[in-house]
This record gives sequence, C-alpha cells and structure tokens, in this order.
Amino acid sequence: MAVVVQNIKRADAGVRDALAEYGVATVHEAQGRIGLLAPYMRPVWKGARIAGTAVTVEVPPGDNWMIHVAVEQCQPGDIMVVAPTSFSDVGYFGDLLATSLMSRGVRGLIIDAGVRDVADLEEMKFPVWSKCVYAQGTVKETLANVNVPVVCAGALIHPGDVIVADDDGVCVVRKKDAAKTLAGAKDRVAKEAESRAAFKKGMLGLDYYKFRERLAEKGLKYIDAPPED
Amino acid sequence: MAVVVQNIKRADAGVRDALAEYGVATVHEAQGRIGLLAPYMRPVWKGARIAGTAVTVEVPPGDNWMIHVAVEQCQPGDIMVVAPTSFSDVGYFGDLLATSLMSRGVRGLIIDAGVRDVADLEEMKFPVWSKCVYAQGTVKETLANVNVPVVCAGALIHPGDVIVADDDGVCVVRKKDAAKTLAGAKDRVAKEAESRAAFKKGMLGLDYYKFRERLAEKGLKYIDAPPED
Amino acid sequence: MAVVVQNIKRADAGVRDALAEYGVATVHEAQGRIGLLAPYMRPVWKGARIAGTAVTVEVPPGDNWMIHVAVEQCQPGDIMVVAPTSFSDVGYFGDLLATSLMSRGVRGLIIDAGVRDVADLEEMKFPVWSKCVYAQGTVKETLANVNVPVVCAGALIHPGDVIVADDDGVCVVRKKDAAKTLAGAKDRVAKEAESRAAFKKGMLGLDYYKFRERLAEKGLKYIDAPPED
Amino acid sequence: MAVVVQNIKRADAGVRDALAEYGVATVHEAQGRIGLLAPYMRPVWKGARIAGTAVTVEVPPGDNWMIHVAVEQCQPGDIMVVAPTSFSDVGYFGDLLATSLMSRGVRGLIIDAGVRDVADLEEMKFPVWSKCVYAQGTVKETLANVNVPVVCAGALIHPGDVIVADDDGVCVVRKKDAAKTLAGAKDRVAKEAESRAAFKKGMLGLDYYKFRERLAEKGLKYIDAPPED
Amino acid sequence: MAVVVQNIKRADAGVRDALAEYGVATVHEAQGRIGLLAPYMRPVWKGARIAGTAVTVEVPPGDNWMIHVAVEQCQPGDIMVVAPTSFSDVGYFGDLLATSLMSRGVRGLIIDAGVRDVADLEEMKFPVWSKCVYAQGTVKETLANVNVPVVCAGALIHPGDVIVADDDGVCVVRKKDAAKTLAGAKDRVAKEAESRAAFKKGMLGLDYYKFRERLAEKGLKYIDAPPED
Amino acid sequence: MAVVVQNIKRADAGVRDALAEYGVATVHEAQGRIGLLAPYMRPVWKGARIAGTAVTVEVPPGDNWMIHVAVEQCQPGDIMVVAPTSFSDVGYFGDLLATSLMSRGVRGLIIDAGVRDVADLEEMKFPVWSKCVYAQGTVKETLANVNVPVVCAGALIHPGDVIVADDDGVCVVRKKDAAKTLAGAKDRVAKEAESRAAFKKGMLGLDYYKFRERLAEKGLKYIDAPPED
Repeated sequence: MAVVVQNIKRADAGVRDALAEYGVATVHEAQGRIGLLAPYMRPVWKGARIAGTAVTVEVPPGDNWMIHVAVEQCQPGDIMVVAPTSFSDVGYFGDLLATSLMSRGVRGLIIDAGVRDVADLEEMKFPVWSKCVYAQGTVKETLANVNVPVVCAGALIHPGDVIVADDDGVCVVRKKDAAKTLAGAKDRVAKEAESRAAFKKGMLGLDYYKFRERLAEKGLKYIDAPPED
Repeated sequence: MAVVVQNIKRADAGVRDALAEYGVATVHEAQGRIGLLAPYMRPVWKGARIAGTAVTVEVPPGDNWMIHVAVEQCQPGDIMVVAPTSFSDVGYFGDLLATSLMSRGVRGLIIDAGVRDVADLEEMKFPVWSKCVYAQGTVKETLANVNVPVVCAGALIHPGDVIVADDDGVCVVRKKDAAKTLAGAKDRVAKEAESRAAFKKGMLGLDYYKFRERLAEKGLKYIDAPPED
Repeated sequence: MAVVVQNIKRADAGVRDALAEYGVATVHEAQGRIGLLAPYMRPVWKGARIAGTAVTVEVPPGDNWMIHVAVEQCQPGDIMVVAPTSFSDVGYFGDLLATSLMSRGVRGLIIDAGVRDVADLEEMKFPVWSKCVYAQGTVKETLANVNVPVVCAGALIHPGDVIVADDDGVCVVRKKDAAKTLAGAKDRVAKEAESRAAFKKGMLGLDYYKFRERLAEKGLKYIDAPPED
Repeated sequence: MAVVVQNIKRADAGVRDALAEYGVATVHEAQGRIGLLAPYMRPVWKGARIAGTAVTVEVPPGDNWMIHVAVEQCQPGDIMVVAPTSFSDVGYFGDLLATSLMSRGVRGLIIDAGVRDVADLEEMKFPVWSKCVYAQGTVKETLANVNVPVVCAGALIHPGDVIVADDDGVCVVRKKDAAKTLAGAKDRVAKEAESRAAFKKGMLGLDYYKFRERLAEKGLKYIDAPPED
Repeated sequence: MAVVVQNIKRADAGVRDALAEYGVATVHEAQGRIGLLAPYMRPVWKGARIAGTAVTVEVPPGDNWMIHVAVEQCQPGDIMVVAPTSFSDVGYFGDLLATSLMSRGVRGLIIDAGVRDVADLEEMKFPVWSKCVYAQGTVKETLANVNVPVVCAGALIHPGDVIVADDDGVCVVRKKDAAKTLAGAKDRVAKEAESRAAFKKGMLGLDYYKFRERLAEKGLKYIDAPPED
Repeated sequence: MAVVVQNIKRADAGVRDALAEYGVATVHEAQGRIGLLAPYMRPVWKGARIAGTAVTVEVPPGDNWMIHVAVEQCQPGDIMVVAPTSFSDVGYFGDLLATSLMSRGVRGLIIDAGVRDVADLEEMKFPVWSKCVYAQGTVKETLANVNVPVVCAGALIHPGDVIVADDDGVCVVRKKDAAKTLAGAKDRVAKEAESRAAFKKGMLGLDYYKFRERLAEKGLKYIDAPPED
C-alpha cells in the first residue's frame, strides 16, 4: 500500500529561513557532523544557496508519477526531496515540473537520480541538486509513498526536516535540532571570521590552533632535505 | 581490413537544421524514446544546442589516426561521432583538429572518450560532448573504419543519421525517422507550451493530466501525519 | 615515524614561471608524455592556468592535520600537493586554509580528495584541482609526512617539482627536466601555430602530416556507400 | 560526544533464527520491498546464509577503534553492522577481530567499507559482506557511536533489527516487522514452490500469471519477422 | 507501440553449437575483433562456456514484464539477451524464470542489469552473465519490444545472432558471419596450439613472431641498469 | 625513445622467498603501511600467495608489444608488473603469454588493466592480479619502456623490488627495505598469534590492548538504550 502523508509538521519557518544564510559546510559542522548527502549530489547550476523544509517523495525506477502527486503537498518554503527505491539515472524532472513547483513557492529540488531541461532550469533560476543529467524520461504507472522518511543519497530525511544546499552539496537538519544548529552555525561563523582575519595577516594555523606541542608529542620530526645530485 | 566509406547518404538538410531548434529531451520523446547516448556524455562547455549529420569514426584505444582520415569525409552541416573500439579516456581531440573541422563547416564533435585543450574549444565556440577531459595524447599507428555503423556511448549510430545535442546530452535520430520526429517535436512543444501556461497559473499536474482517478484505482491512500513528540 | 622535510630544493623559479604560459597538454607532450595526473582531477572553477613548485603533503583518510603543518613549509610560487594515504572523498580544505596559503603567496592546491567552500574558493580566485567536492570535514589526530615523494592521482611527485595545471588537468614536471621541457614546449607551440594556420585555410591533416602513403601501406581502403532502401 | 548504547532491545530470537531459512530476495519481498542494502555489498566468500540481530557501529574514515569497543556489546546471535561516517575503502576488519566475534557467538559482519585477511575469513567460515577487500589498515584515534541508528550502504538500520544476508546481498528487517515478515516469507515460499513446479512442466508465466489480457489491453502486438537478405 | 517479433531467423544450429567449443577471446579475434560486450558483464558462477541464438528483450527500468513475454519466443538452443532501456541494477531475473527457461531448452541469460537467487542459479547450473547481483525485484506495468535489435552492454545484437559466453565475458557473432567466424576460430586454435608448444619449450615470442627487427627499426634500445647505492 | 633496462639489481632471493610466507596485510604493516596497490586489483583466481622480484613493463593503451619484449628480461623468481601509460581495460595477457612466463619460472603477473583466458589461467595455476577481465585483444605497434620505475595501480614500483600478492591484494616492498620488512613481519605474526589465542578464549581487545582509559579520556560515554514503544 502506498500513502501520501498530509499535514506534516515542518521545522520552524524562521529557523529554516535563517539557516539559508549559512553554507552547507558550516551547518554540517554545527549539527555535529551528521546529515550530509553523498558527494555525487551536485548543483545543476552554480551559485544557489537555499534552505527549505523537506517534502519527501519515493519514486520507483524510471517512474515519476509520485512527483506529480507530491506537488500538491508542497507549500511556500518547501524543498522537494526525491529518492528512487533503487538506483536510477533517468531524468525524472524537467522544466514543466519546475514551473509547477515555482508557482507554489517551492525553493528547489534534491533528487538522487537524473533531471533534464537543465538549460531551462538555469534560466528559470530553479535550484536543483541531482546525481546526473539525463534526457531519458519516465513512465507513470506505479505507486510509492509521499512524506515518509526516506534515505536519499545516503542520508536519512524526515518530512519537514530542513534541507540546506549550496555549491558544496546538500545537508539535512533534523526538525528538533534546527534551532540548536542555527545557534551553532552563528557561533562558528563568528569564530571563523576571527581566524580568517588572523590567517590573512599571515598567522599560521600551527600557532593559531596551538598544534605544535601535540604534534611533537605524537613524534613529528623536522629534518632537512638530503642533498640532490 | 579497414575501410573509409565515401559519399554516404545524409539525412535531409532542412529537417536536420530544423531539429536544432528542439532540445534533446523533446527530440528523444518525439522519436519514441530511443536514441539517447549514455548520461556520462557531457558538454565541454555549456549553452550549445546543435543538430548535424553524423560522420562516424572508429578509433583504436589511444590512437586518433582515423580522426585525421575522417576530417576529409566531412562537409558543412556534419557532426563528427567518434567511438573507440574499447574503453579509452585519453584526449583524442584538441584545438588543432577543431580548427580543421570548423574550416569545413562541421558543427561539433561527439566522442565516447577524452578531449583536451578545452579552454581553447570554449573560446573557439566549437561544441564538444565527451566522456571526459584528459591531456594525455594519442599515437597514429593503427587503422579502423570511417562511416560504418558504430555503437557510441551505448547508442547505435549510422553515418548520415541526425545528431542532436544540448546541455541535456546527445540523441541520434535515424535518417528515415527524421521528418516524423521533427513533426512530433513540433507537436510536443506546442502541447508543452499549453501545460506550462497552466502550471504557471498554479494548476496541478494531478488535475491537468487527470491522474486522480487512476491513482485511487491503484490504491493510493491519503493519511494525516501522526503526532510527533 | 613521520617527518617534515625542510629546505627542499625547488625547480628554477624562472623556468617554473615560464611554464605557466603553456597549457598542460603542451607541457605533457614536451616532457615526453609523462607526468599527467588522472583525468578525474578537475578544476573547482574554470579558467585558471598556473605553474608552481610542489610542496607535497601526505594525509591520513579523513584527517587534515598535516596540511596545517605543511603551510609553514610553503613560500611564494609554490603549489600545495595533497595525497591521502588511502582513498578519501572528504573535504580536507576550505576557505580558511586557502586564506592562509594565499597570504604566503601559494599559487594553488592539487588534492586527490575532496574540498569544500568552493563558492568562496572561486570568489577568492584561489585555484584548486580536486577529485571531488564534499562538505564533510576532517579530524586532526594522526601524523603523516610532508615533503616526501608522493603518488598523487597516479603520478609520482617529488617536492620541488614543477606542477602545471589548467582546465585540461594537472601535470608534474621533474625538477631536472624542467628547462628541457620548457624549451620543448616553446618549439611545440611554434609548430602548432603553423599547423593551425594551415588548417584554418582548409588544408587537411592527411596532407599536412603526409599520412596518405602510410595509410595506404597499412591497407586502408576507400569505398562508396552501398545504396540504401 | 560519542556514546555506546547498552542493553539494546533485540528482535525476537525465534523469529530472527527462523528468518535465516529464507533468502534475502524472499525476505525483501515479504517485507514490502524495503530494507535492501546497495548491490555493491558482496559476500567475501560464497555460500553463507545467515540472520542475526544488529549491533551497529559508526566508524570514522580509516579508524576502527569503535569496532573494538562494539565487540563487548555483542552477544550470541548478533551480526555486527559497520557504517563509516564517510566513504572509506580501507580494511577495517581482519582475522583477529573475526576471532573475537566468533568467540562471542556473533554470526557475521556487514561493513560498508573494506576488510582484509579474506583467505583466513573463508577458512574460519566467518561470513562477511563488504564493499571491497583492501589490505590497508586503520588507526585508533577518534570516537564515534555504537548502537545508534545508522545508514549502511543506503539502508537505515536500528540496533536490534534483524539482518538477513546471503549470496544475493543483505536486507534489514525492522524489529517490529520481523514476525509479519517471517509469515510473509513462509507464504511466498509456498507459492513459489507451486509456480516452480508449473514452470518445470513447461507452463508459461504468461498463462500462469494470466498476463495475456492485460498485455493486449496495453497494446502489445505480435508480428512476424521481416524477411532477411 | 511495443511489438513481439515472432519466427525470427536464427543462425545455423550446427555452426552455433560448434562455436561453443571455442572461447570468447578466440571467437572475438576470429570475427575481426568486433562484438564484445562490456567487461562489466561477469558470469554469476564460474566455469560455464556456452553458445546459443539470441532472443532479445528490451525492458523498462525496474520492470521485467517483457521477460515473461519473451519466454514464449524461446526454443532449445537459444540464449535470452536482456537490455534495459536505461541503466538499471535491479534483479530482473531469478530462479523461477530460470526454471521456465530451462524447461524450454534455453542455454543461458545475458542481462545488462541485475539478477537474484544466484545461489539457486549456480545449483541449477543455469549460466547467467550480468552487470550485478541485486535482490531488488521488479514491477510488471510497462511494455517494450521483444526480438528487435538491441544494444546490450555496448554491443549491437540482432535476434537470431549467435551469443558465445565464458569466464572471459560475452561476444555476439552476426548471423551472416557465423560460419566464417567458426572457420577462423578453428584456424586460430590450431595456430595457438603450435605457439603454445613452442613457448612451453622456452622459445620467446620475440623470436617466434620475429619482432626483433621491427622493434629495432622503431628505435627500441637495450641499456644496462645504472649502478645503485 | 624507449628503453629496455637489462641486468637490473634484484632484491635478495632469500628474503624475497621468505616474504611469500606472510600475507599482504602483514607485509604492508611491517613495512610501515606503504606500498599497497589500489583495492581494485583482484586475483583472477582465489588462493594464490606469492612473492617475487618485479620486472616492470610500461604498455601503451591497447598495445601489448612490450610484454613480449619483457618476457626475455624475466628469470626464475620474478613477477611481471604491467602498467599502462593511460587507463585501459583491454585484455593484454592470456594463456600463451602465461605459458611463456611459466617456462621461465616467473611466479605471476600484476597488471593494472585487463586479462583474458582466465579459465585457462586458473587451470594452469598461473597467478594473476588484474583490474578486470576482458576478451578484447591488443595490437603490437608502439614502443614503451621495460624495467623503469612505474606507477602501477597507484603504487611506485622499481625494477627488482619485491612484490607480495594474495587474496587481499598486492604490495610492493622496496629492495632496500626487504630484509627489515621481513623481520617486522616475523615479529608481527608472533604477536598476532598471542592476541589470537587471547581472543579465542574470549578476552576483549578493549582489555588486551588496554583501550578503556584512553577511550574515557576522549569522552566516550556508556548509556542505556531508551525504552521503545
């Protein structure tokens, strides 16, 4: 039996929107180094940085029917997350579905499979992270679930979780951890501003982070290069 | 024995040129979902959209001699299609060969292997779709065939077939199916314009395509999200 | 025992800087077709062309401590070369380390693993060639060597060797071969200018390189296409 | 902070042991087609078929310290499930750890990374499913969690879930679904015995499953082969 | 529209059966080095060597309905060849379909996708070459073609062509070339017996094939190893 | 210019032969965790464990001429090491070359490419480690070097180095480090015998290696599983 779960609880909108100001690398660290999707998830076009609440969609291999079903479950501020039930590289998504999602205020698409019409997607400025680009289309024959927890590109994503995505990739932040993660990201960015300033002036990380003593304890030796012929 | 087949029959030039106005995804659907090359075939630079008639070239691994032979068989409106006889990632093609092809009016290159001088290729605006980029060069020692049917990136291509390529990838259209495919592409684009307009106004694909009844028949259930802690 | 080798002998600075004017494909040919890194090494952003002297860094999987150690060994004109001791895709390097390296006059990074903060790296115009992009960070727990010979993406690199990198990939030039390779690159570029001019006018490579006789000797046959139905 | 969760609740031992009699393909179907690990998970030696309760272990890249920690949490009937926090191919596990696990009655290992000493593992008849075989060892420097939910080779696994593994791969059965899945597997095997008998006698699936009518409705046509030259 | 082509013309049975006595490497060379399927096609169990006439089956991703349709088109001496219309790794085929095919005298399966029940397939001694092993099953919803030319693992295969398969992989022999290829294989095996005997006695290939002169002409130099420290 | 280096200095024969008694994992650890070839190097048949002195062979893509040249440079106790100058998956080596090498007392082949006739290789008991199996043959047209240092599957190998290979993969031991590595391997095996005995009796690695204190210092916490519904 396939189900569409309606009226999912979403992460707090204010926290979600604030997370968009932080990069994926920062958010991932702030959450305790969990939640990253696999590195093969790449942006279809460069320069987007978004955060949104996940509407999750399972799709059978080569069948995008449930994406059409899931559009209705989306609201402004959401990001659609599509997870095939087995490996697929076909193009589940193109400019028509992007038009539909944009008209509902959806902020982007995360899909562990292929997309097409990528020149249009860039022109429309609809952000997409996918495994690949492929013009091969899909059928509409088989049911699957909408808004159930999915594993997408190796990460567990619950409906309503926050998705953060930029040129570094994609990270999921658990609903319940979103506020704490946002606070951690703020701290982290503040600290990085300080270290960046120090490094710009030429200070070494060795000194800034006080690594020298521990390196020596572990046994690191400095030697001179042998003479060459 | 290796042969160069001369005076191949090419697809109709008017049809070929008209196909350049349609994207690969559209042409692929219009032809009945056949003819796509594998998704690893990516454009060396983004934004080109071309159609042309195929001059097919077999090359031994690491040997580009036959590309030099095949240049002579090209005429304006052609696209060169290169298929190694076994897997190869070396750079068979660079800016000098591109200069040669451009001087003959060739519209682009499709190669199931590597290319090099990619910054030059982009500057020259010579469109190339390849498996990879690699500076490793080739030798000129071993014969192979020109203008015989080849399997390139998983697709069967006959000399004179139409090749259509854009940022979504590469599709081959059989000579005899080219006119019918062009007509189908026109129809498809017209229909998509209508559905795009509807989606822009917020109409759902569920309603536009009348999916709801068949989904219910297959057993799709709508439920509410369970309460969370 | 892990060592940091100091005061390495670097290739001649004049030769190194002159090599930056030649592309990777040219340099690789001029050196006798050796020294290329694997084709999966791709620039994080397009358009950079650099040459520099290698500071080599071994890193354990998921541990970037030694990169911090190696920064101190860098001087203006260097390129940092990072080789994990086993396969890793995590993001060893981001905008803070790039800031540090830029403050020391380092020209770029070559890393057989992942990097992050790639939007920042592009904005800073710090050139990086990597295997992948991944936001996953590292720990700082385990020692390895700095400025020992490493195998990076399949190529043997000694400290002080010249690294040349552009959109075609990355090539290492041995210290002792650098001057000879530079001379060869100059010759090659001069010759290519001639052939490019000939090809632009429509001369065929078949004639320019005098291939026809050897092709005939090997048995190449020209036939006409059979009639089609 | 890293934690070791003790005294996990395990699936019912009787159900777990009964599941060992069914193949992975059967169990996966009986559970509603969920729970499979990725197809790259292959047995180190062929012929084992096991079921056990999961003790889950997170490991940092290239660091197997937590496997040593997790051994203590294992009891007879368990299967150890190891999930690196990022991609790793190193050999986290060899004959010494296998000796330890066997002495505690552990039935096998599932690891989304590499193992070594594989000739010994086969001789000891300790079943292992892994991503690869690699002699590269690990360090013992960094903490991670034991007995928390993990994503292993694309599947979500909770401590105490049932793992079923054979030459077809690996499947996880949720604790709460184990009894129902076992019942489904029994039914399925009974039905398959009937169909197998029918097929052995030459009955066609087309007739046995009554496919002909639906195929005709969808428009399948039977035509004769055209004459060949 | 999907079609099942009936009454295909098969290659001569005597030639087909005789080809089974030659290995794939020999047959491939005898046919002029064409017709090999990609190297990722591996036998599910080692030791089978078969030849048969191809019944070709297109399958949509994740949908094995057409395999059931194609069984009826098989006769003794055939080999089923399955080509998904886009990349798929799911298990399209297991012990029940193998039972069906064996009852019709089919000699094996070639599938550019996954299979399951591999322990059973080996026990039944039904030979299978596949891209992978995966327990994930399929649906039965979408039509495709039977007995049309297909590209399978990079090779073009027509219905009725001869398929030869052993531990080295899979090769297709065109119907019209089968007799000539068989003759070539016989010659080749005879010649190899002579060279094998010579090599067993210690004769060098350098002398047996008279390579020395051509090597010298090309410029091969013999030098002594430099002294080592 | 291509060279064949003759009269290379080989590692001590006694040390080399003694290393064959130790597995690759042990030798790799004993040498300080360097020298492993990439994990994709797998034995063509299982169960061989060999050590020998390297004769190194560069080969162009798809061209095995230099293997024939290198046979003459082999003597009893050697292992042939073949490194293509760019990626190749073709079958460079089959039963005839194996016959030749066996007649000279060569102990095995390590090749970063494909081999064929694998059923014969197993029957002859000639051990081979390769990247893949592929029936595609080679040409004999282009020179390369014999007995120069090569990078093979990511490892630097000098002529005369010791190669150790078993079901875990392949490791190179530098000539000058061979005796020291052998001594280390002996020590390691002795220590492992002790730990294996302890583990067999049920002693935990946590206690045997005295890990508990350091784990606590790093902050590892033990907690009880939360109650489940």
